[in-house]
Amino acid sequence: MQIREAAQDDFERIWPFFNPIASAGDTCAYPRDISKQEAKRLWMHLPDKTFVAEERGEIIGAYYIKANHDGPGKHVCNCGYMVSEKARGAGLGTLMCKHSQKIALKLGYKAIQFNFVAETNRLAVHLWSKLGFEIVGRLPKAFNHPEKGYVDALVMYKWLGD
Amino acid sequence: MQIREAAQDDFERIWPFFNPIASAGDTCAYPRDISKQEAKRLWMHLPDKTFVAEERGEIIGAYYIKANHDGPGKHVCNCGYMVSEKARGAGLGTLMCKHSQKIALKLGYKAIQFNFVAETNRLAVHLWSKLGFEIVGRLPKAFNHPEKGYVDALVMYKWLGD
Repeated sequence: MQIREAAQDDFERIWPFFNPIASAGDTCAYPRDISKQEAKRLWMHLPDKTFVAEERGEIIGAYYIKANHDGPGKHVCNCGYMVSEKARGAGLGTLMCKHSQKIALKLGYKAIQFNFVAETNRLAVHLWSKLGFEIVGRLPKAFNHPEKGYVDALVMYKWLGD
Repeated sequence: MQIREAAQDDFERIWPFFNPIASAGDTCAYPRDISKQEAKRLWMHLPDKTFVAEERGEIIGAYYIKANHDGPGKHVCNCGYMVSEKARGAGLGTLMCKHSQKIALKLGYKAIQFNFVAETNRLAVHLWSKLGFEIVGRLPKAFNHPEKGYVDALVMYKWLGD
């Protein structure tokens, strides 16, 4: 398995797992019916960089990195991660998150912030906590879960050092 | 004084107070050297709506309203407010914030979130608190203040009711 910077046309091989994750509506802040074109804009054009995890020629995960705010907030980045269904439970989220922390420092960022982690997404909360992210905010009923209705969203944050 | 929806060319009369506020670098998440064109894109094109406060033909304040996240977060909006220097201390921030809460409900939003309030911006923190916003998050050293260096940024939030 290798994690490498994505080429624009890699999105063709990200979309097959991006689409069901967005459609489920229980983890990320995208419309459930997001178009491939808009998803590509958000993941391939808007971010500083996008990386893919590739195993035997197959893309099994991806993440992006971008500034979370501009101006006085430009030293804090935001990342989003997606793992294909078949690759889940094998530690790829951990690997990509560790990779992204190194890339963040290389790009000059000093911290990573996750803005919108559904409190019901226990796997993610557990994973990010294990990797040193702290829950620094709780947004009451900010996440409209498809089955559970309005649940809290968490803000998670890790200072990467000076 | 009236608060009314902005016309595109009103930005010409917003920019004279927008520019020094952004240049100061101590309150909002814009580059200190933001261009007029980019500022206009962020305030007039990107948001759902933009409003201006006008007194005797002069624009003395403005705010925008937009969804803070998409998909499962689309019921929470974000607003940004600016008051011209000469109008400060006269309650215009309060008036615009109250106005924006009504507009938020009209547009179908259920909450307002401020993502990035510098803890050093005591006037804002005090004002939003008085208006019912709670501090729901604290982002360690997320705001690079031009004089004070890295200070915490606060996330403030108000549920507007169902």
